[in-house]
Amino acid sequence: MGPRPTARLAQRLLCSRPPTTSPTTSPKLVTPIRQCRCFRASPPRRTPNPQRAPPPKPQPPSRATLLFSGAGLLSVALGLHTAPTVSLDAPPARDDADNPELPRFRVDEIRKHDGDSPNPWVIHGNKVYDITDWVPTHPGGDVILRAAGGSIDRYWDIFSIHKNQYVYDILSQYLIGYVDPADLTPDGSRLAVSDHVEDPFADDPERHPDLITHTEKPRNAETPGYALDGGFLTPNELFYVRNHMWVPTVDDPEEHTLTVELPDGSTKTYTLRELKERFPKRTVTAVLQCSGNRRADMSLESGRKANGLPWGTGAISNAQWEGVLLADVLADAGFRTSEDDEVKHVHFSAMEAYGASIPIRKATDPYGDVLLAWGMNGKPLPPDHGFPLRSIVPGNVAARSVKWLKRITLSDEESPSQWQRRDYKCFGPNQTNVDWDAAPAIQEMPVQSAITAIKLGSKDDPDKEDRPVSLGGYAYSGGGRAIVRVDVSVDGGKTWSQAKLLADCSGSPSQCSGHGAWYWKRWRYDGVVPREAFESDAAGEGTSGDRKCTSLVVKATDEAYNTQPEGYAATWNVRGNLTSAWHRMRVCADCADGIVKKP
Amino acid sequence: MGPRPTARLAQRLLCSRPPTTSPTTSPKLVTPIRQCRCFRASPPRRTPNPQRAPPPKPQPPSRATLLFSGAGLLSVALGLHTAPTVSLDAPPARDDADNPELPRFRVDEIRKHDGDSPNPWVIHGNKVYDITDWVPTHPGGDVILRAAGGSIDRYWDIFSIHKNQYVYDILSQYLIGYVDPADLTPDGSRLAVSDHVEDPFADDPERHPDLITHTEKPRNAETPGYALDGGFLTPNELFYVRNHMWVPTVDDPEEHTLTVELPDGSTKTYTLRELKERFPKRTVTAVLQCSGNRRADMSLESGRKANGLPWGTGAISNAQWEGVLLADVLADAGFRTSEDDEVKHVHFSAMEAYGASIPIRKATDPYGDVLLAWGMNGKPLPPDHGFPLRSIVPGNVAARSVKWLKRITLSDEESPSQWQRRDYKCFGPNQTNVDWDAAPAIQEMPVQSAITAIKLGSKDDPDKEDRPVSLGGYAYSGGGRAIVRVDVSVDGGKTWSQAKLLADCSGSPSQCSGHGAWYWKRWRYDGVVPREAFESDAAGEGTSGDRKCTSLVVKATDEAYNTQPEGYAATWNVRGNLTSAWHRMRVCADCADGIVKKP
Repeated sequence: MGPRPTARLAQRLLCSRPPTTSPTTSPKLVTPIRQCRCFRASPPRRTPNPQRAPPPKPQPPSRATLLFSGAGLLSVALGLHTAPTVSLDAPPARDDADNPELPRFRVDEIRKHDGDSPNPWVIHGNKVYDITDWVPTHPGGDVILRAAGGSIDRYWDIFSIHKNQYVYDILSQYLIGYVDPADLTPDGSRLAVSDHVEDPFADDPERHPDLITHTEKPRNAETPGYALDGGFLTPNELFYVRNHMWVPTVDDPEEHTLTVELPDGSTKTYTLRELKERFPKRTVTAVLQCSGNRRADMSLESGRKANGLPWGTGAISNAQWEGVLLADVLADAGFRTSEDDEVKHVHFSAMEAYGASIPIRKATDPYGDVLLAWGMNGKPLPPDHGFPLRSIVPGNVAARSVKWLKRITLSDEESPSQWQRRDYKCFGPNQTNVDWDAAPAIQEMPVQSAITAIKLGSKDDPDKEDRPVSLGGYAYSGGGRAIVRVDVSVDGGKTWSQAKLLADCSGSPSQCSGHGAWYWKRWRYDGVVPREAFESDAAGEGTSGDRKCTSLVVKATDEAYNTQPEGYAATWNVRGNLTSAWHRMRVCADCADGIVKKP
Repeated sequence: MGPRPTARLAQRLLCSRPPTTSPTTSPKLVTPIRQCRCFRASPPRRTPNPQRAPPPKPQPPSRATLLFSGAGLLSVALGLHTAPTVSLDAPPARDDADNPELPRFRVDEIRKHDGDSPNPWVIHGNKVYDITDWVPTHPGGDVILRAAGGSIDRYWDIFSIHKNQYVYDILSQYLIGYVDPADLTPDGSRLAVSDHVEDPFADDPERHPDLITHTEKPRNAETPGYALDGGFLTPNELFYVRNHMWVPTVDDPEEHTLTVELPDGSTKTYTLRELKERFPKRTVTAVLQCSGNRRADMSLESGRKANGLPWGTGAISNAQWEGVLLADVLADAGFRTSEDDEVKHVHFSAMEAYGASIPIRKATDPYGDVLLAWGMNGKPLPPDHGFPLRSIVPGNVAARSVKWLKRITLSDEESPSQWQRRDYKCFGPNQTNVDWDAAPAIQEMPVQSAITAIKLGSKDDPDKEDRPVSLGGYAYSGGGRAIVRVDVSVDGGKTWSQAKLLADCSGSPSQCSGHGAWYWKRWRYDGVVPREAFESDAAGEGTSGDRKCTSLVVKATDEAYNTQPEGYAATWNVRGNLTSAWHRMRVCADCADGIVKKP
C-alpha cells in the first residue's frame, strides 16, 4: 500500500498557479487566486480505512506474474503510476556473476542488431541480450526496439521503473554474452564508447506555461482551473495533455498514411490527403477525460493512495473535432457489418507504440460519431493531441481516442496492448492483487461533476456570518448521456439546491455537434452559505480551534438517472480510475471577503 | 409531507408470506421463512432530515395548477400514490347551489350522450355535465368516456381521489343542467334508476396467491422473494403486476388490431395474426422494472415519505419475450428514418387508456431490440401482462413497455399522456413543488441491485460468534449495460468482497437473447460475518439493549462503471422513483441458527 499523500500534494492541488496569460475564451466567473489558505479538498480522515489491513502477503512471482507485473512496470515507467502496484512484492535473489562460457561481443557487432535486424540485441551494463523472443510480449510493445543495437540503460534512466529486480529477472533469460572489455570503462561496468540512443523526448513541442504539469517526460499536464471554467470549448493550448511516450513527428502531414487491415489480412492505405478528399467531413463536439481525472481526490479523501498520476479536476477538456467517420472509412476499406460477424473490435495503433481498441458496435453505430480527426477547434491537431491524425471516440474513456494514428485493425479480440488489457480497468476497493482478465476494459464513462471555481462574497452582516457564494464547474457523463440535473449543497450534503445549467448548445450555429451529449455541461450556482452551515461542519470533522467550516458539494445526474457515489472509499480502486464521488470543497467562515479558489 | 412509514409497513416488507406452492424454476438458495424477528431493512433514523423543513407554502391554485394537480390526482386514484402530492394544497370554496335557469334532463335523454356520442355527458350527484371539451385534457385520457351517458359516481367510488374539491372545480365549468327530479331519489341527491356503469375490474383475471399485493383495483403486486431468487426467468404467474387500470379483455386475440399512424396522418392496421405471419419472429430476454421498485426503502431509510406504492424489492422481474421488431413494422407501415426527420417519438396507446412514448432512436436502433410481443417465457402473454399484444422496450423503465397495445403514433413530440409528462420523472431531494416540464421522462434505468435471500449459518463457536452467511439477489442496469461487478459488505460498507455472478447466459441454447444485457444478473455470496462486525453496528445506530447487529450490504457496478449511491437521502424524490441506494439488510448476532430472511 502506498504512503498517505503528502501535504505538498494537497498544497499543489489547492494552490495551483494563477494564469500567466489571459484566457482566450468567454468571460470568467472568477478572478485569479489571491489567497487559498481557507480551502482544502476535504478534511483528512482520522481513522484508518479498515480495508487497508491486512496487507497482501508476499508471494514468489510466477512467470505469469512476471509478465503481468512487467506490464504494470512499464505503465509506471510511462507515467501511469507514481508508486509501484501493490502486486509487486519482493523478488527472489539471483546470481549476478559473469558466465565465462558465454562469448564477448564488440560494440560494432552489437550495433548490427538494431531495430531493423531480425535478431535485435540490447546492452544492459556489460551484458548483451538477444530480445528477439521478448519483443512480442514486451508490455510496451515494440518501442523496445528503439534501444536495440545499443544500451538500454539510457532508456531506463528515463523509464526508471525498469530498474527493478523483476525486469532484471525477465531480461536474464535472454542473456547471450558480454561486451568485449575493450569497449568498456576500466571498471568493466559500462560502455566506454557512446551508443546511438538519443533522448526520445528531444522533439517534444513547447507547452503553454499554465498547464499544470505532473510529469515532464512523458508530458502529463492538466488544464488550469480558469480554462475549465472559462469557456465551453477548451483552447487547444490549454487542453489537458496525457502522453504515454514521446510526441512523434511527421514531416509531410498530408502524406501521413493510415492503413486499415481487414480480418482476412488484406489492407487498404489512405493518406491524410485522401481521407480529406474522399469522405464527408464531420464535426463532433466531445469531451476527452482521462480515467484518472480526480485521482488525487480519491487518494486524499479515502486515505488510501491510488496508483497513478495525481490528477486534480483538470484531466478533462472539451473540444470540437473535425474529421471523417470511422464507419465510412471501414466501409470503403471493404468491411461489411452484416458479413463480418466475427469482427468484434477495432484496434487503433499509434506511431509511438500506444494501442487500444473499441467495440465494433461503437465504431459502426450511426449515432456513435467515432471520428478519424485531423482538426481541433478549427485548427489542425496540435502535436500533443495527435497531429496529424487521431481517433476520437466520444463518450468513452480518452484512452481509446488514440493519437498519432497509423493503423486500424479489425479483429475478433481486443487490442493486445497493455493499455487495453493490463490498465484502464477498475476493481473493487478490496482488490489489490488484481486479475486483469476479470474486469472489462473501461469504455463508456460514469457520470461526473466537479467544482472548478468558487467565489465567497462579502459578509452582509459580520455578526450574522451568512456568506454569499458563487460556484461554477462542469458535469459530464459517458455514452452520450445528457446531464439532466446538477445538485449543489452548501452544508456538506445535508440539503441541496439545483445549479443553473449553461445553455452552451443554444447558439447559432450551435457549438454542440454530433448525435449524443458527448460534451460537458457547464453549471453555475449563486447562493448563500448560512451561518448554521459553518457552525456544524458537514464533513463530520468538527472545527479546528475556533474555525467554523463547511463543505461545498456538487453531484450530477444523467439522463439514465445514474448519479455519483457519495464517498470515495467504496469506489476506491488500486489504479485510481474513474473517481466520481461527490466533489467537495471546504470553506470556512473566517475566509476573507472575495476570496476566490481554483480547485 | 406524508407521515413516517408505519411499523406495519416494515413488518410487511420483512415478513412476507412464505410460498404456498413450489417455485417452478431452479433450486433455491434458501428455504421458506421460519423466523424474521432478527431482520429489518435498516435501523430507523433518529434525526429528522433537514431537507424536510420548511414545508412548502400553500398557494392558491391557478388553472394550470388545477390541470397539473388533476394529473396527479388521477395517478393517485390509480394507485400511483398512497398520499396526495405535496403540491395539492387546500382548494378554494365554491358555490354548490342549483341554478334554476338551467334545464332538467331525463335519464333516457342523458344515456344518449354515451362514449360514442359526439357530445358525451356525465352525471355527478344530481348534476349533468357536458364533458366534450374536457375529454382531450383529462389526465386519464378518454377512459372518462366509460362513464359517459351515466353517473360518474361509481367510478369515483373506485378512483376515490376524484372526490376532491379540485376535481369538482374543474367539473363545475362544464355544468349544463340537472337530472329531472322524476329520476332522482326522494331527497334529490342521487339517481333513483340504475345507470349502466359496471365495475371496470369485473373481468380482471385470477392472480397467484403468492404475489405480494399492494392494491387490488387496479392490481399492483410484487414478485415474492423466492421467485426473485429462485430462477433466472420469472414464472409468468409470479411476474410482478403493475396495472394502472383494469385488465382489458379480447374475444378473438388473433384478430386484435394494431394501428400504426405516420406523421402525415395515414394509418396502417395489422391484426395479430398478420404480425405473426409477415415479420421475422424475435426473442429478447429483458427485465421489466417499475420506476418505484424499492420505494419502501427510500421512504423508510430516508425518513421521508415518498409518494407512491410502497414497493419492496419485487417490482422487477425477468422474462423471455417473443414477438416482432417494432422497427420492422414501422418500416412496413411506411416509415423511413432518413426521410422523416421530424419524427422524434413513438407513442404507444393501450386498450384501457394508458399511453407512453419512447424516442425514435431507441425504436429504430438495430441493437435496441424493441419488440411488439405476444409471447412470454414460451407462452401467450397472460392477461395481466398485456394479452394479446404489448410493447417491450428493453433497458428502459417498464412504464414504456405498454400492455394491451392498440395504436402506435409517430410524432415530433412525446406522448401527451400523464404517464409520460406528469409522472415517471425524477427531481432533486429538495424539490417538492415540482415543475414537471423541467425534468425528462425516465427512459433508461440506473444501475440497481438488491439482496433477496439471506441465510445465516450455524455458529461455529458460540464464544467466537462468527457467523457463516449466504446471500443471493439480483443486479441490473438500464440501457443494456452489463453488470460487471457486485460488491458485498457484511460490516455495513466498511469492507467489501465480490459476489459470484451466476452464469445464467452460458447454457445452450442461452436463456439470454438480444443485443444488450437487458436481463438481470443473479449473484451469490458465501462468507462469514465476523464477531467484530456484530460488535460495531456499521449503520451507526449502535445496538439496542444487548443486541449486537450489523448491516449486510450490496452494490453493483455496470459496464459504464456507474455505481449505486450510498444512501437514500440525496436521491430521495417526491415521487419515490428510481430508488437505487446500496441495499442494506440488518442482522444480529443473536439470530437463531439457520434463519432465513426473504426481504
